[in-house]
This record gives sequence, structure tokens and C-alpha cells, in this order.
Amino acid sequence: MASSAAACSDDEKANWVLNAPRLSGPWRESVEFSGEESQKDIVMLHGSPKHFKQSTTTDASSEEHMLDLEKNSSSVDRSQWVLNGPEPPGLWHELMDSVRETISYCGSKYSSLKSQPMLKSVVSVQREIFPILVWGRNYSISKFKHDLMAGLTIASLCIPQSIGYATLAKLDPQYGLYTSVVPPLIYAIMGTSREIAIGPVAVVSLLLPSMLQKLQDPGADPIAYTKLVLTATFFTGIFQASFGIFRLGFLVDFLSHAAIIGFVAGAAIIIGLQQLKGLLGITHFPNSTDVISVMEAVWSSFHHPWNPHNFMLGCSFLCFILISRFVGRKNRKLFWLPAMAPLLSVILSTLIVYLTRADKHGIKIVKHIKEGLNPSSVHLLQLNSPYIGDVAKVGLIVALVALTEAIAVGKSFSSIKGYHINGNKEMMSMGFMNIVGSLTSCYVATGSFSRTAVNFSAGCETPVSNIVMAITVIISLQFLTRLLYFTPIAILASIILSALPGLINVNEIYNIWKVDKLDFLASIGAFFGVLFASVEIGLLVAVAISFTKIILISIRPGTETLGKLPGTDMFCDTEQYPMAVTVPGIMIVRVKSALFCFANANFVRERIVRWITANKAKGLKGNNTKDAIQIVILDMSNLINIDTSGIATLDDLQRNLLSEGIELAIANPRWQVIHKLKLSNFVGKIGGRVFVTVAEAVAATFSGKIATTC
Amino acid sequence: MASSAAACSDDEKANWVLNAPRLSGPWRESVEFSGEESQKDIVMLHGSPKHFKQSTTTDASSEEHMLDLEKNSSSVDRSQWVLNGPEPPGLWHELMDSVRETISYCGSKYSSLKSQPMLKSVVSVQREIFPILVWGRNYSISKFKHDLMAGLTIASLCIPQSIGYATLAKLDPQYGLYTSVVPPLIYAIMGTSREIAIGPVAVVSLLLPSMLQKLQDPGADPIAYTKLVLTATFFTGIFQASFGIFRLGFLVDFLSHAAIIGFVAGAAIIIGLQQLKGLLGITHFPNSTDVISVMEAVWSSFHHPWNPHNFMLGCSFLCFILISRFVGRKNRKLFWLPAMAPLLSVILSTLIVYLTRADKHGIKIVKHIKEGLNPSSVHLLQLNSPYIGDVAKVGLIVALVALTEAIAVGKSFSSIKGYHINGNKEMMSMGFMNIVGSLTSCYVATGSFSRTAVNFSAGCETPVSNIVMAITVIISLQFLTRLLYFTPIAILASIILSALPGLINVNEIYNIWKVDKLDFLASIGAFFGVLFASVEIGLLVAVAISFTKIILISIRPGTETLGKLPGTDMFCDTEQYPMAVTVPGIMIVRVKSALFCFANANFVRERIVRWITANKAKGLKGNNTKDAIQIVILDMSNLINIDTSGIATLDDLQRNLLSEGIELAIANPRWQVIHKLKLSNFVGKIGGRVFVTVAEAVAATFSGKIATTC
Repeated sequence: MASSAAACSDDEKANWVLNAPRLSGPWRESVEFSGEESQKDIVMLHGSPKHFKQSTTTDASSEEHMLDLEKNSSSVDRSQWVLNGPEPPGLWHELMDSVRETISYCGSKYSSLKSQPMLKSVVSVQREIFPILVWGRNYSISKFKHDLMAGLTIASLCIPQSIGYATLAKLDPQYGLYTSVVPPLIYAIMGTSREIAIGPVAVVSLLLPSMLQKLQDPGADPIAYTKLVLTATFFTGIFQASFGIFRLGFLVDFLSHAAIIGFVAGAAIIIGLQQLKGLLGITHFPNSTDVISVMEAVWSSFHHPWNPHNFMLGCSFLCFILISRFVGRKNRKLFWLPAMAPLLSVILSTLIVYLTRADKHGIKIVKHIKEGLNPSSVHLLQLNSPYIGDVAKVGLIVALVALTEAIAVGKSFSSIKGYHINGNKEMMSMGFMNIVGSLTSCYVATGSFSRTAVNFSAGCETPVSNIVMAITVIISLQFLTRLLYFTPIAILASIILSALPGLINVNEIYNIWKVDKLDFLASIGAFFGVLFASVEIGLLVAVAISFTKIILISIRPGTETLGKLPGTDMFCDTEQYPMAVTVPGIMIVRVKSALFCFANANFVRERIVRWITANKAKGLKGNNTKDAIQIVILDMSNLINIDTSGIATLDDLQRNLLSEGIELAIANPRWQVIHKLKLSNFVGKIGGRVFVTVAEAVAATFSGKIATTC
Repeated sequence: MASSAAACSDDEKANWVLNAPRLSGPWRESVEFSGEESQKDIVMLHGSPKHFKQSTTTDASSEEHMLDLEKNSSSVDRSQWVLNGPEPPGLWHELMDSVRETISYCGSKYSSLKSQPMLKSVVSVQREIFPILVWGRNYSISKFKHDLMAGLTIASLCIPQSIGYATLAKLDPQYGLYTSVVPPLIYAIMGTSREIAIGPVAVVSLLLPSMLQKLQDPGADPIAYTKLVLTATFFTGIFQASFGIFRLGFLVDFLSHAAIIGFVAGAAIIIGLQQLKGLLGITHFPNSTDVISVMEAVWSSFHHPWNPHNFMLGCSFLCFILISRFVGRKNRKLFWLPAMAPLLSVILSTLIVYLTRADKHGIKIVKHIKEGLNPSSVHLLQLNSPYIGDVAKVGLIVALVALTEAIAVGKSFSSIKGYHINGNKEMMSMGFMNIVGSLTSCYVATGSFSRTAVNFSAGCETPVSNIVMAITVIISLQFLTRLLYFTPIAILASIILSALPGLINVNEIYNIWKVDKLDFLASIGAFFGVLFASVEIGLLVAVAISFTKIILISIRPGTETLGKLPGTDMFCDTEQYPMAVTVPGIMIVRVKSALFCFANANFVRERIVRWITANKAKGLKGNNTKDAIQIVILDMSNLINIDTSGIATLDDLQRNLLSEGIELAIANPRWQVIHKLKLSNFVGKIGGRVFVTVAEAVAATFSGKIATTC
């Protein structure tokens, strides 16, 4: 076609703008439009708008002829832009680029350091690693007042929660308190978030035993189990720190928002069910965490004689905590009430049990909590145990889940206060605090959502609130553990239970349902996976659904026909824009995916061929050969890439169309796509019919058609 | 920004086209352009080109004002097109649509039948199922001459190949001949391809034993193994027929072109290695097919006393076949020579062995081949064996591989002759022929590449050539099996070996390497998987690499900055089009993927924020606040979909940008994307800054900027 157009004299071509005979309304508009446009282009090149006005008012055909000549050459030029563009970077180059970008951050730091004297550069590296050196210089007594208040508030919430979470993690209660000492101190020095409250959290405390008790039953050998937990904590720290150092923060992104919401909601219910053990005072509780086995255990416990005192005590204090929270929410000034309620409950209930000696009547109590500060646990790490591979896997999963929670928490509060937290730096500090934690008898710590919210509303200013909290916990560990002897376990259960509703975000799940049904599926998949199978399976299901969704959307073999938006040069989906007008005799198709590949190419080809056949049959029936399709324009603007199967299918399509006397043109191919089409000589096969835009392809078609009929 | 623009009087806005003060060259061009364009739009609406010329020639500001008023309203309208478009179909609707499209094919058939009288409709259904009723009516004696010639040629190739492939499949030789009788006959009646030659093929004959001998060792109990093979064949037929009936042809597409090329090349080498058993006369040969164990067996066989006669005999006839092929390729008239060479070799070598009684001197011979036509094998099918699940899995894999080969072969030859073959109908006929085959002692048959090529070059016209071939094989089975008693096994091996080079498509592998490095990886993965692990692992590796590639490309978190193509209204990737000019003060970014989702959204956000920070730092250094970025336009034209994580990230991005005093606008969102953005109220958060094109977003930005400074 291109060659036949070239064979025609330019005079004849010049007429096509005005005399296009077979065209209906919308098409005429577009032809005139592109004609005007190219005239204007030339005017732009010549520089003066005055000239433009002259040229449009003069009707002299010689001028028009000249213009059209230039127009034509300029349109050819634009096709050349597509065809003779620079080569895209190869696979190796792209890989190196992404590596370079990853390290460029450090690189730019390094280069800026080189220009500084030695001492100064050491100082700035130190500042980079320890943000406390930056914010510490402006620290004031007024800030400290806020931090002290916030620190004491979160400490009062933290002490009972830590003991409860340690029980959930099937560790001795003091491990929860240990974990609220060392990691917060290290985070306060290294972390970039000002609000985050570090310590043990519910989801991680559930995740650890659910994966580790398969390797070592905590009931049978608590010390061996504790060793495993500390080793897993060590690995968690190593993984988190290396994510930060190697800038692999994107790994955290692989747990999608929807999946996390569903997973956390499921985990909250599982955690709640685990609390039934403490609340009902059940002795025999299953190791597996799924709903069915827990409900069976609860059911069978009712058949045995059971002690309702535990339940009544727990429930009444649960009501107290919930009411205090309700009051705190109604009256902003009483924000400390919901934060203090757990500690108040602990003190009150412990007093009641101590005075009534209710532990002799079936109330289960915490009993002995080991006194004193964190002992060293270096000797407890088992890096040459036979389970080392499994423990490392547990460490990896826990590292990802813990980071996801911490970064989500950190981000949501930093964005309220309007500052950025650096994801990779956060990972490094979290990793370092867990490594040191694993050496000082702490299990995995991360940012707790409930305590961070309390910290924020208590008006914390800097990570000093974490230091205050840690010191408070140290004091409790040194002097107050004996007072906790009579604390009823049911109270710890009710404190954990009271924190759970915040984890089940029904609103967000409803939003996800409203916006994205497949995301909802991932969410619900994670939820039911956690509930009815196990915690890991829930995570696996969520990740699997998320990635399946990506594959489905990417290769979904959809196509859309394009029409011209009235008044513009744009061709858009006729379904999205009902006002778009299709051009008779031309079929403009866009593939609704980013890849034209083995999995969808054939489907697209078959659909186009079917449409052509249907159109032909209709044309034969109606005897209007005018509307018969003469060219198929494939809009490639949203194809990021094409593979060899896709190119082979395009070859097929071109041959199929040729046998029907229809030509194929492509518009707006992207960089990789046009490169591959050139390499595989497909551009030659379609006679170089490659255009920058659909509009130019349409215009070229009509000019070509007239050339062949002249 | 939008509201401030609205607060300005229209007079002031009217000036922006002419007085845009801060703009550099390319931008000015675009503003004028869009101004002119909208004028023209209105002219189009008013209908008369004359009016257009008048309006451009008159310089009266009142007229311009009026035009600008209308222009503005029309530009608002276009944003409204995006914002108030129809709702996209929901997930359920889309599912139903694709189901409807799948069955519409049959539906349209059915509706066209309803209008016909009863008898006629029965006839057309019959014709649909048995294409022989269509082409049979125009069958002539001249066509039969061609088909007879072609049929005899492929029969001469088929008889030795069938025996060899049966040996490769670890079945008795007669099963290969059986498979060349019933399936070709059925295919001739039902199939749509005219060239395809049906029968046993190399890859399937390798695949069956490699998967089934794990369930039943053919050496230990040949009859039980044969039963398994026949049952697997039955399942293969069932799967193939149901793919056809339920129009699941797209499943075949999941084996990508590149994967198949690599897989077949690997399988060819494995098949070649298997032939070493016959060629060297080795007695102890390993069951596993990987290179290493086969080479070990070959190596150890050299240490035992071995008989070089087999090898010499095989090699000399292999040379004969290869030379005859070379001669046939040089001289087109001797095309029958390479086709006949195998049969000639068999006859000659059998004669030699018979006359010299070489079988007594170590030459291994075929020995007894069971005489007579295909016996019924209904009683051999084991549908209640304990392995039924595994056998069904084997059936599924074999069904896919066999269909892929047959459809590839059929398509490549039908496209040479310029007619379509119907994929779903092909699957149905293949499935039916394998079901019937499994009841008549045949193993899996499909379209053979080598014999189809011979059939084509021998000038076949219709599937009658398959009937001729089947009849020839029937005659051989009845009368000639005794003559094959002395056929040396080394000859069968050399016949199979001679067919292998055609399966290793080095050219195509080089093309794949040139065009697509990741496809090449899939190809090479399949190749080495088959070679060093097993046939199934090779397939698995290929499919896994193909899908990983889809995920990688879909979520690859790339971005590109856009610039204006001179002389057009288009904004393109500045790397692909080096002549594209960026607009100072505006950052136009496009995400290089089809999905803005959990896996890439955060990366994109961080990159934009980093660019903004870098730009700000540069601006501070250079003191030129003029170039400071004031707005980020996100071109969403190639985002097919967005998920809830993506929307949350956009929220984050908007907040990040706001804190720097930068605004966010989006251009050309697709149907699903704008729908979700509206649902999640993101459109409200960015103040409704949604535009149909980047150009309009840019224009609106500048008009807004002027409005705020006025």
C-alpha cells in the first residue's frame, strides 16, 4: 500500500483532504483535522503564526500542494521516529541499571562524603546510622515532659500485654517483659519513626509457636522450645537487617494490603480463641490453632467439670476495659483511661485474688515471674541444630510479617505528622534490635499498632517515650515481679482480647469488597486460610491469590475496539467512551493487557478473525460493500512487551488477514515491542505500516486508498 | 487548583493562550496548539469550515473570548467524559461474558439451524462433525491420484517409523502399526486439516514410558505396562475431546512457542540417546531418560564385550538415509527418495540379515511381530486400578503435548495452502480418534511433523492420503509381518535417528535468543530440564519460567518520563523518542506496567518522591525556582487495572507531594482504573484533576497557574 501511494503523483494525493469520497461524518472530521494539524506543524517549523493565518485563508492550490508535500514528508518522518528510534537497553543492561539504582542511594552519600574532611564524614555516617544524634541536639525539657507522659502511658499498657503475649507465644511471662526492654532502647537510638512503640505484638506471638511447635513441643520441653524461639528471633533480625542493607524493602510489598487485612483479621480471631484457654481455665488445649480444633477443645472442656470463676473474673474486667475505652473515645481528655485500664485491672484483680486467696478455689494465676534484668542468651542460640533450615524459614516469614506491621504502623502515623520514614533504614534498625534482642533473652519485637496509637494520642515527641517505657519495665522487672504472683491469667486473656477488635478492620474489608473483588478474594482467602487451616497456609493463600490475580489480569485475553473521541485526535475504547465514533471500513483494536504473549496472543488473533468473518457475512447479507473492513489497525500503546509466540501469532494474523484482502497496520508500539518487531522482520512483512498514533494510521490508510483508486 | 481557576473571571482565562509568560518554546507550541485545536472543535460542532476560516482571520477579542468560553466548557466536558463514563462490567458480569462468548459459537450455529427444516439441520450438523461430507462431494479421480501417491509415500515412511516408535514407547512392535491404522481412518473422516499425517510420534512415544514406567516397569510385566499405556491413551482422548467440546483450546497456548522449541529439541536428543540401545546392541539400559544415566550405561557397555556389527549396520544405513535426504533436497524431482529410503533400508537390511543369518552372529533383530488386524482392547483398559489418578495425569500431559504438536503442524501447513483449521474441531477429532484407538490396541496418535511434511511435498489433496496409508498398513499387518522377522533393530534406530535433526530447530532457537532473552531462558530451561532431569521436569521448568516472566514484566516497577513529540499533541517516552521535549515545571510520569498493585506501587511512589527531592536540591543549588516542579501528571493510559494497595499508595503519593507543595493530576485512566479511583474517593482527594489526555492536563495546569497568579 505504501508503495502504491508513493507511485501516485503528489497532485492527486493533495486532493484527498478535500475530496475524500467514501467517508462518513466523523471520519471526515478527523481527516480535516489531521490535515489542519500538519499544516500547523509546518507553520510551527517556519515559526510565524501570521504565516499560518495566511496559508489557511488563501485557497491557491499551489500553496496547498506545497503544504501537502511537506505534510506528507513530516508524517513519514514520524513513522521513522518509531521505526528508527534508539535501541532499548538489553536485559543485561536493565539488570545492571536496577542494581545501580539500588546502590546509587549509598553511592551518592559516599560521593558527598568524599568531599568532606575525614572527621566530618565520620560524623555524618554516624548521624546517618543513629538519627538520635540529629534529633537529640534539639531535644528540650518541654519535649521530655510529653515523652515522659507518653512513655509512662505505654508502659502501663505494655507490662500486662507483654506478659499476655509471652503466654500466647508459649514462653515464660518474663520473656515478654525482656522483649519490652532491649529492643525499644535500640530502636530509640537507630529508628526513624517518632511514634512507633516497640515490643512484642499479638500476630508475631501467634505466628512463632504455630510454626515452631511442630519442631519442638513447648509442653514437653519448654527450654528447648525457648532456644528455638530465640534462634528464630536471631534469624529474623539477620533477615530484617539484610533486607535493609541490600535495599530489598520491596519484598515487604509482596504481602498486599488486602492480604494483610484479611490475615490480621483471621489472626485476631485465632488469638481470641487462644485466650479462651486462660478465660475458661482449660487445661488441655490443642497445639493446632485452627478454629475447628480449638472449638472442639472448648466444647469438650464443658463436659468436664469446669470452674466458672475464671470466666466471670475475666469477663467483668474485659467489660471494664471496653467501657473505659468507650469513655476515653467520647471524652478526649480522658485518653489515659483506656491506656491505664489494663494496668488498673491487673492491680485490682491481683489485689482481689491475694485478699480472697481465690487461687485456692480454681482461679488460675501467673505464679512465679523470674526477677531481674534480661540475662544473656548467647548460649541458648542453636545455630547447629538439625532444625536450622526450618528455623531460618520461620525467621524469614516472621521477619516479613513483623516488618509489614511495623512499616504500616510507622507510615500511617508519620504521614499524619507529615514526615517520611525511610523503609530501608527502618528495616536495618528493626533487624539490629532483634539480633541484639535474641542475645539478651528477647523474642521478636516490632511496632505494635495498639501501643503506637496510644503513644501518639498521649503526645509523644521523639523515641524517648520508648526509652521511658523500657526504664519503667526495667524497674518492674527488678522490683515488681513478686507483686504479679497473684495476677489471674484470665485478666491477661481479657487484656489481649480487648486489643483484638482493633485488628479486625471490617470497614476496610468492606472498602476492599467495594473497590476490587479480586483483592477481596485475597483478603478472604487469607482470613479463612488462617481460621481453618493454619497461620502459614493463610499467608500462602493470600500471596498465591495476589500473584494469580496479577497473572490473570496480565494475560487476560481481552480486546477493545476504539473510536474517535469527537473534537480530538484521540481514539478511545468505545465502551468506556460511548460518544466515541468508529471509523467505517477500518477496524481499530487494542489488546487489553500489557503483554502479547503465548497465553493470550492466539485468543486475540482468533477473535479478530472471527469479527472479520462476521463483518464479511453481514456485508454479504446487506450488500453494502462500502462498510467492509479494509484494514485492521492494532493499537499497541499499552503493550509493554511481546514474546516470540506473540510475534509468531502476529505473523499468522497478518497471513489470515491477507487471505481476506485486509491489511494490518500497527500504531504506537512501545520501545521493546517495536525493537522486537524489527528484529523479527515483522515490520517488513506488514510493509512498514507502523505509525506513531492511531489517527495517523487512519489518515495514511485513507490517503493510500485514494491513491489506489486514482 | 480547579476551584481557584473557577474563581477567576473568564476574561482573564481567555488570555492564557496568548500571554503564557513563563513558558519555553516547546510548551508554547503545545499551548497554541491546544488552543487552535479547541477552536477547531467548536467549528466542527458548528458545522461549517467557512466559519472556521472567518474566526481565525478576525482578530476581534470578543469572538476569541466567546471561543475560549466554549473551549473551556468543552475541555471541562472531556474531563467529565472520563469521570462520568458508564460503569465497567463487574467481575461476575465479565465472567458470564467470557462464558457466553465461549458458547456463542455453538449458539450461533444452533440459531441458524432452527430456521432450517428438520432434515436439513440434521445434515448440517453431520457436515459440521464430519467434514468428509463436504469435501467428499467434490472429490475427483485426479485428486485421488495425488492422494494415492502421497498415501503410499507416507506409508513407506510410516511402517518402519511406527515399529521404531513402538519400541521407543517400550511396547511390542505391532502396537506402532496398529496406531497407524485406526486413528488415521477416524481423522480422515472428522479432521479439518488436509495435510496432517496421523500416527505415533517420537515425543509422545518418549513421554509415555518416561512417566508410566514409574508405575509399572515394562521389563517386569509387559502386559500390565501395555494396559497402563492403553488406559493413558483413553484418558488422553477423553481430555482432548473435552478440550474441544468445552472450547478450552487456549490451554494448549500455555505451552509457549519458545518452551516447545526447547522441549522438543531436548526430547530429540533424549530420543537419540535411547536409540543407542538399538544401535550398539546394549542389553542393560537404564529406565531413566536423563543424559547422565544414559551415558553411564553406554560407557559401561563399552567395558563389556560388545558386538560392533549392529553399530556398523545401523550407521551405514543411517548414512544412506541421510544422503538420500540430501539428494532429495537438491533435486526436487527425487522427493520420493528420502521418503522411500527408510523402507528401502528395512528391505535391504532384512534381506542381508536373512541371507547371511547375521542374527546368529550378534545382530539383534525384531523377531516375531504379531500378525493380523488391531484386536479389541476394551478389556485391557484399567479404569479401576489404584494408579488411576496418576494415569489420568499422564493422560492430561500427553494430551496437551500431542495437541500442541498436531495443531502446530496443522497450522503451519494450512497457512501455506491458505485455509483455516479450526482448533476446537481438531481437538475433538483428535480426542475421538484416541478414544477409539485406545479400544482397538492403539497408543496415543497425533500429527507427525516429518510425515506431514512428506505428505505435503508428495502432493496430497485431502485426508484420503491418510486412508491410503492406513489401508497399506492393514495389508502389511495381514501379510507382511512375517517378512519383518529378520529386520535388524539397529535399522529401526537409525530410521528414528534420521528423523531427529528436524526436531532440533537451531535457527529458531537463535531467533528467539535474538528477539527475546527471557523466552530464550524458557527455551533453554526446557531443553536442559529434559536433558538432565526428566521429560516432565523439562515441561514444568518451561511453564514456570514462562509464567514467572509474565509476573516479572507485569509488576516490573519501571517508570518513564514523557515529553511532547514536536508537531503533535502526543506525550511519549523521552528515551524511545529522543526528539520529545519535556515541559519545564511539570513532571509527566508513566508507569511501565499494566498493573499498579501491591508489588510495584510503592517502588513507583518512592522513585517519584526521590526525583522530586533531587529536583528540589538541584533547584536550591542553582537558585532557579522557575524550573521547580509544580505538578506531577501521572499518565495512566497503559494501566489496565489497579488494586487497593495501589490506591492506598496513590493516596500516600498525593500526601507526600502535597507536603512539598506539589499537586497530582492523572491523565487518561482506563475504565476499571477510573471506576476504582472514583469508588475509593481518590478523585475527590486530588480535586478532580482527571483529564482525557496528558496534553489537556498540561494545558489545564498552565491555565490554572495563570489563574492563581492573576
